[in-house]
Amino acid sequence: MNQSNCMVAQSGGPTAAINASLAGVISGIKKSGKYDTCYGAINGILGILNERYLNLSQMIPDEKTLNRLKVTPAMYLGSCRHKLPDYKDDDSAYVFIFNQFAKLNIKAFFYIGGNDSMDTVLKLSDYAAKIKSDIRIIGVPKTIDNDLCMIDHTPGFGSAAKYIASTMLEIAHDTFIYAVKSVTIVEITVDASVYDNKKSVTIVEIMGRHAGWLTAASALARNDYNTAPHFIYLPEVAFDKEQFLTDIRNKLKTLNNVIVAVSEGIRDKNGDYITASKAVADQFGHQQLSGAGKALEFLVKENIGVKVRSIEINVLQRCASHLASATDQSEAFALGEHAVLLAEEGVTASMVTLTRTSNTPYAVAYDHAPIRGIANEAKSIPREWINAHGNDIRQELYNYLYPLIQGEVSLTYQNGVPVYMPVPHLKPDHIS
Amino acid sequence: MNQSNCMVAQSGGPTAAINASLAGVISGIKKSGKYDTCYGAINGILGILNERYLNLSQMIPDEKTLNRLKVTPAMYLGSCRHKLPDYKDDDSAYVFIFNQFAKLNIKAFFYIGGNDSMDTVLKLSDYAAKIKSDIRIIGVPKTIDNDLCMIDHTPGFGSAAKYIASTMLEIAHDTFIYAVKSVTIVEITVDASVYDNKKSVTIVEIMGRHAGWLTAASALARNDYNTAPHFIYLPEVAFDKEQFLTDIRNKLKTLNNVIVAVSEGIRDKNGDYITASKAVADQFGHQQLSGAGKALEFLVKENIGVKVRSIEINVLQRCASHLASATDQSEAFALGEHAVLLAEEGVTASMVTLTRTSNTPYAVAYDHAPIRGIANEAKSIPREWINAHGNDIRQELYNYLYPLIQGEVSLTYQNGVPVYMPVPHLKPDHIS
Repeated sequence: MNQSNCMVAQSGGPTAAINASLAGVISGIKKSGKYDTCYGAINGILGILNERYLNLSQMIPDEKTLNRLKVTPAMYLGSCRHKLPDYKDDDSAYVFIFNQFAKLNIKAFFYIGGNDSMDTVLKLSDYAAKIKSDIRIIGVPKTIDNDLCMIDHTPGFGSAAKYIASTMLEIAHDTFIYAVKSVTIVEITVDASVYDNKKSVTIVEIMGRHAGWLTAASALARNDYNTAPHFIYLPEVAFDKEQFLTDIRNKLKTLNNVIVAVSEGIRDKNGDYITASKAVADQFGHQQLSGAGKALEFLVKENIGVKVRSIEINVLQRCASHLASATDQSEAFALGEHAVLLAEEGVTASMVTLTRTSNTPYAVAYDHAPIRGIANEAKSIPREWINAHGNDIRQELYNYLYPLIQGEVSLTYQNGVPVYMPVPHLKPDHIS
Repeated sequence: MNQSNCMVAQSGGPTAAINASLAGVISGIKKSGKYDTCYGAINGILGILNERYLNLSQMIPDEKTLNRLKVTPAMYLGSCRHKLPDYKDDDSAYVFIFNQFAKLNIKAFFYIGGNDSMDTVLKLSDYAAKIKSDIRIIGVPKTIDNDLCMIDHTPGFGSAAKYIASTMLEIAHDTFIYAVKSVTIVEITVDASVYDNKKSVTIVEIMGRHAGWLTAASALARNDYNTAPHFIYLPEVAFDKEQFLTDIRNKLKTLNNVIVAVSEGIRDKNGDYITASKAVADQFGHQQLSGAGKALEFLVKENIGVKVRSIEINVLQRCASHLASATDQSEAFALGEHAVLLAEEGVTASMVTLTRTSNTPYAVAYDHAPIRGIANEAKSIPREWINAHGNDIRQELYNYLYPLIQGEVSLTYQNGVPVYMPVPHLKPDHIS
């Protein structure tokens, strides 16, 4: 009897939860009465084009390895950023891919990724329809940017948001050490400059080129004693330099240490990105030098003159599995399992989705949506969830965000560092 | 009967363990049969000069608050960077401080800090000796830089080292997603650029202006599948640009994704810091723009031409209490308690220290050393613990480092973020 096998691959940028979805797919296939072996293609769709596969059913044989995979950051299978051509222009890649599927008895293909990856799912689905293939093509969403349509929120976002909120709180603790209020100068010789220098501005740059979801999550660091970040600037609102400087100047009147969260993707009213080279164009010419955080740092330095520093959270926000959201991780896993169920039921040309059925208590339902309405679309923060001044978020956005960062993941540590799944494609002997 | 009270303050840069030492001092005073109230001066020695104190015995009344304080990053009491003048030039500050001590019945003063703070301990001790005061002056060490003399390692270093090692491992996972080895090009239309671009260099800049201990700790990310960081450049070895480029070029022959750990404090053979403005001096003129990481990024970009990025770990390495080392935290606490014991025994003009009595199993003993041999001295990595090429560490340094990052701290989370002690000096109503 012919085998019924599946293939899975990962694509786009890393998240802390994308391997949880991979683990979910592997788990779903194991539980399935319909499918036998689960193959993983290395480096996304390129893995198929290069015939580089892993036998995941063999490599992830038990609960222990499955759980380890679930908590491992970035892509276990490697990634790619590869856009397939339109098959009407050039179908050679499609012919090759579907020949590979036939050769390995693949009945369902799961592609875990973000917006660009869903474009691949759409194109493979269209080609499958054209050649009347019954291979199921299902997208499994992930992106820290939370900008996919037709889904309440994307796996990977909750973990990144938890990391941003927690580290923003830690940065606040780090920043407030010089918070000297209402200084009583006594009649002795003390260098006055330590008081003059007490005011400071800290700019924290957070990922999000087109949508401000992740930057907004920094607000979750606020609690009964911490009001930082004091301003939040998002790509959804045109950035105005004068208004920014006015915001900072006003806040410095009542607060010594102002902390600002800014999205890397802020743009002015003409749609141009705010970068350091734009902010101080006449002083240096290295365009690639820096982004929004540095730009705001220079603006403060040159116009207000208090102590200022910028912090770029960088790749850690997407790969810090040591601070993943348990909610995010379990949803990512469930989406992977649900994708297999969908394939079994005959669903294709779709992305598995989740809907928030209740916010208090938080509950979600798993479903799916046609891939055509998802690929190449993007979801921004609704303007009404941002305050009128465009420098902070509203309660509706807090309510939306809070459930997504709940719960901690317990990791195993060895020699003082987390135990993750080895990166398999670094070991040629593991490659079948 | 006159009270016997103590005062404690914190100074210098934040660490994840400096509040554990504060908690240790408070705990030691509670256990003490000799001392009554523990006062905290706000913003280090400036708190005394400004008469700004907290009654810590009241504010930290139970185990629950003590444990919460223990895990809270940065300085609960705030910090300062204030150098006292030589009392022989101007004793007004000293007169004021010792009047404050008398007014509050202070019998022992504990100053938690790094190198500069130990200078304050030395100066206060000298003045106390001159005026024949019997107030005990004890330094409690902390610094993520691990550069204090007369102590095996400094509290705060182990937690920062654990953070560096763990995040380096996560950055490695993040980096290896495009690790395509021995690509088999198949006879179809694939954009060749995805293969051309497969080589990359990632530069990770780590704190340490004068000593490379923290940068060296990135080596602890290595395990049975991860060999990153592939090179480690430290301030202890003169940095040679040509040798660096040769290192990278050679490694790229056998490895697609090279990860480099570099200390912010690397210098050339003339002792000049390696900064981006030095590296590409003719291209822009903003001296403050960037440091060693950016400099190495530009060197690779302009001389090798592969994809390159630099990551600055920034303040998170010193304030990420969510990834503190349990070993570090408990040692920091024990040092605080031991400082109180020393004061009770009549010790003064000293810093509490720890000695490694055994490495396998790891064990330490608590002791003290005269402050005069500690203040204004600095401890670098022994050259023989660094390899001959000066681009990696030797086994001796692994052996030294490993015990310090062992053990995880369990935090309480609320609303998805860690629960820390509120910053008290932001609340004027808490200030007595």
